[in-house]
Amino acid sequence: MAMTMTQKILAEHAGLAEVKAGQLIKAKLDMVLGNDITTPVAVKEFRKIGLNKVFDVNKISIVPDHFTPNKDIKSAEQVKFIKEFAREMGIVNYFEIGQMGVEHALLPEKGLVTAGDVVIGADSHTCTYGALGAFSTGIGSTDMAAGMATGEAWFKVPEAIKFVLKGKPAKWVSGKDIILHIIGMIGVDGALYKSMEFTGEGLGHLSMDDRLAMANMAIEAGGKNGIFEVDDKTLEYINEHSTKPYKVYKADPDAEYCEVYEIDLSSVKLTVAFPHLPENARTIDNVGSVKIDQAIIGSCTNGRIEDLRVSAEILKGRKVHKDVRCIIIPATQKIWKQAMNEGLFDIFIDSGAAVSTPTCGPCLGGHMGILAKGERAVATTNRNFVGRMGHPESEVYLASPAVAAASAVMGRIAGPEEL
Amino acid sequence: MAMTMTQKILAEHAGLAEVKAGQLIKAKLDMVLGNDITTPVAVKEFRKIGLNKVFDVNKISIVPDHFTPNKDIKSAEQVKFIKEFAREMGIVNYFEIGQMGVEHALLPEKGLVTAGDVVIGADSHTCTYGALGAFSTGIGSTDMAAGMATGEAWFKVPEAIKFVLKGKPAKWVSGKDIILHIIGMIGVDGALYKSMEFTGEGLGHLSMDDRLAMANMAIEAGGKNGIFEVDDKTLEYINEHSTKPYKVYKADPDAEYCEVYEIDLSSVKLTVAFPHLPENARTIDNVGSVKIDQAIIGSCTNGRIEDLRVSAEILKGRKVHKDVRCIIIPATQKIWKQAMNEGLFDIFIDSGAAVSTPTCGPCLGGHMGILAKGERAVATTNRNFVGRMGHPESEVYLASPAVAAASAVMGRIAGPEEL
Repeated sequence: MAMTMTQKILAEHAGLAEVKAGQLIKAKLDMVLGNDITTPVAVKEFRKIGLNKVFDVNKISIVPDHFTPNKDIKSAEQVKFIKEFAREMGIVNYFEIGQMGVEHALLPEKGLVTAGDVVIGADSHTCTYGALGAFSTGIGSTDMAAGMATGEAWFKVPEAIKFVLKGKPAKWVSGKDIILHIIGMIGVDGALYKSMEFTGEGLGHLSMDDRLAMANMAIEAGGKNGIFEVDDKTLEYINEHSTKPYKVYKADPDAEYCEVYEIDLSSVKLTVAFPHLPENARTIDNVGSVKIDQAIIGSCTNGRIEDLRVSAEILKGRKVHKDVRCIIIPATQKIWKQAMNEGLFDIFIDSGAAVSTPTCGPCLGGHMGILAKGERAVATTNRNFVGRMGHPESEVYLASPAVAAASAVMGRIAGPEEL
Repeated sequence: MAMTMTQKILAEHAGLAEVKAGQLIKAKLDMVLGNDITTPVAVKEFRKIGLNKVFDVNKISIVPDHFTPNKDIKSAEQVKFIKEFAREMGIVNYFEIGQMGVEHALLPEKGLVTAGDVVIGADSHTCTYGALGAFSTGIGSTDMAAGMATGEAWFKVPEAIKFVLKGKPAKWVSGKDIILHIIGMIGVDGALYKSMEFTGEGLGHLSMDDRLAMANMAIEAGGKNGIFEVDDKTLEYINEHSTKPYKVYKADPDAEYCEVYEIDLSSVKLTVAFPHLPENARTIDNVGSVKIDQAIIGSCTNGRIEDLRVSAEILKGRKVHKDVRCIIIPATQKIWKQAMNEGLFDIFIDSGAAVSTPTCGPCLGGHMGILAKGERAVATTNRNFVGRMGHPESEVYLASPAVAAASAVMGRIAGPEEL
C-alpha cells in the first residue's frame, strides 16, 4: 500500500509493513522532550506509574527554556524539581543555564533528533524537527510521562496534505513568510490532525533555517506534524550536527493525500499575521500604518543564525526607532556565540537593540519583554493569540526577522524596502 | 567653621557659608533619579502637587532597570506609565531598553553626575556617586516627587566617619572586599545617618570601579552617603565621561568626625558576607565548604568592566561547575559591548556561563536568576537579606567578582587561589 513520508516512518516504528490513515498504532520513540513548564507535570505522572527508571537515559531531553533564567520563585521551584529528577534518573540531556537554548533550536543543533526519528515533545512546537525528515509532534505531559516510562506512544496515523513548492523566493522572503502565507490560505485548522508534507523543487531554495521555521508552525495550521522531504541540504545539516543513525523515508509516488497545494515561492510576498490568529495573514503591501512599541527577534521559530544575520543586515548603520524596544534573543548559546563572532551583536547594540541570553521569554508571555495594555509588538514568534505576549489588550503581529528588524527602525510595521 | 566634604557640598547647595551636623537645610539638586519601581509612585505624588512641568528636564533621570526587559504585565504597565510621564514632561534622560543600564552604573557613565553634585535618587544605592566626590543619597518616592517639582530637598546635615585608607591591596582583593570588610567591622548600622568619607594614600590603589562598588554599599552600613576624596583618577574619569561643570570639595583638616578608622588595605583579605546580612563578613579562609547552585556577576555594585575582566581572567580555560548556573550581567549596554569586544564573552560562553542583557534582575529577586527553596547563590550584589534573591529559604553570599567566578568553577564558595 502506498504511504506518505509520515506513514512510512510510523509504520516502521510500529513494526508494521504498512499503516493507513486513521489506524491506531503504538510506535517506538527515538526522543521524548519536555521543558520547564511541562516536565514537572510529566514527572508527577511518571511517579504515579511507580517506576524508578526511564526507558532510556539517552532518549529523553529536558530543556528549561520557557521561564529561564528563572523569572520568579515558582519557575525556580519547577526547574529545581526537574533538575533533581534528571539527576536521579541519570538523564543525559538535561540542559542547564549556560548550556541551554530554546528546545526546538537546541535539539537539532545538538544532533539529538534526525531524519526518520519518531519524536514526541510536551510542547506544541515539537513539530519543528519535521524539517529534518523526522516524524515529530507535540503531546501532553501525561503522554510525556508514559513515553519516558515505556519508550512508546500511541498515535492515530494522520492523513496528509501535500505542499508542492516551486520557484525561488524573492529577496527578503523567508520560510516564515511562506508558512504565514500557507496558514493564511488554509486557516488555523486547515491541517487539523493532518500531516503537512513539503516537497517539490522549490525546497532547494529553502535553507534549513527556513525549513525549521516552517515545520515549527505546522501546529499553527492544526497539523499533527510538518515534514520536509530529505534532500542534500538536510543530509549536510544532519552530518554536521549528529552522529545518530538516520533513515530517509520518501513518500510513495502514489501515496494518498487529502489535498495537494502547489505553492509558487516566487509569488510569495513578505507576510504579516495580524492579531489575534496566525491565519490573519496580510502581505506587507496591505498592512497599512501599524505603530509598534516592541520588536522581538527570536524564539523556536526564528532565533537561528540566519534570522540574526538578516536582522543585522537591516539594522546595520540604522537606529531602532525611539519609541520601540527591540529585543533580540538568539535561540541557543551556540547561535549566540556565532552571532557575536560574526559581528552581528556589534550591529545590534549600535542600533539600540538589547541582546538577551537564550530563552523562550516573551513569545509565550513568560518574561523578557512583556507587553502593557494597548501595546503592540511585531515578533518573529509563532503565536499571536489574545494576551499571548502580555496584557489581554496588547497585540502581536507575527512576521519574519526582516520585517521585524525593518519595523523596529521605522516604528511601524514595514518591510526592508521601505528603509 | 571646619567642615567635612559632605558638609561643604551641602552648605554651598543650601546657599550657606557653613553648616554643621544635625542642621536642617534645603539644598538645590543637580540630579533627581528614579527607576521602574519607584518612579510610578513618585509620578502619582507629583500629579497631586498639580504642576504640569518638572523643575528641569535635564536634571531628572528615569531608568527602567529593575524588572526590565519587562518581566510581566505589572512591570510592563509600570514602565509604560513612567515612559508616558517622561514624554509628557520632556524629560531628556529617560532610558529605553537598548540604551538602558543599571541606573547607578549608567548615570556616571553617561556623565549625568559629577564631583560636587547633590543627587537624590529613589533607590537606596544612589549613594554610589559618592565615588565621584558627589553628595548622593537614596530617598523615597515622595521626596523624588518633591525634587522633580522644586529642584530642592530637605536634609539633616550628617555627622561623618572618616576612613583613612593606607597601603595596597593584595592580588584579587577589590573594592568589594574592602567595603565588606568595613561593614563587617562596623555593622549594618555602624554608619547610621552618617557620611562615610574615604580618604588616605591608599585611595591611589583603588580604581574608579573599586570606589563605585564601595560607595555603592555605604547604605549597607546605614550611611546617609559615602564619599571619596577627589584625586587624579576621579578627574580623569569625570573628564572622560562628563561635560557638566564640577567642583572639588576637600574636607578641612580640622573637620569633626565622630569616628576615624585607619584601614590597611594590604591586610584586607578576600571577604564574603554570609546570609542574611552584609555585616556577616568572613575572610575567604574562614568560609568552610559552602556548595552553591548559582553565581551572579553583575549589579550596580559589580557589573562594571573591571568586574567582568577579573571574572574572565578566572573563567578563562575553565568550566562552570555542572551544578552551578553562572549568570553574568554587564551593567550597561556600553559595558556589554566593551566586554564583548575585549573577548570576555567568548570566555564566558566557552566556560558555560550565560550572559544577560543589562538589568538589576536577580539582585532584588526581580527576575533573571531567582532562587528556589534551599538554593544558595554567591553574588556580586549588595544585599543578602532573607529571600532577597528568591525563596525565603534560599541564601545569598555576597562576594567580589573574583570570588564569584572562582566559586562558579569550584561549585562551592572559593577564592581564585584554590583553582
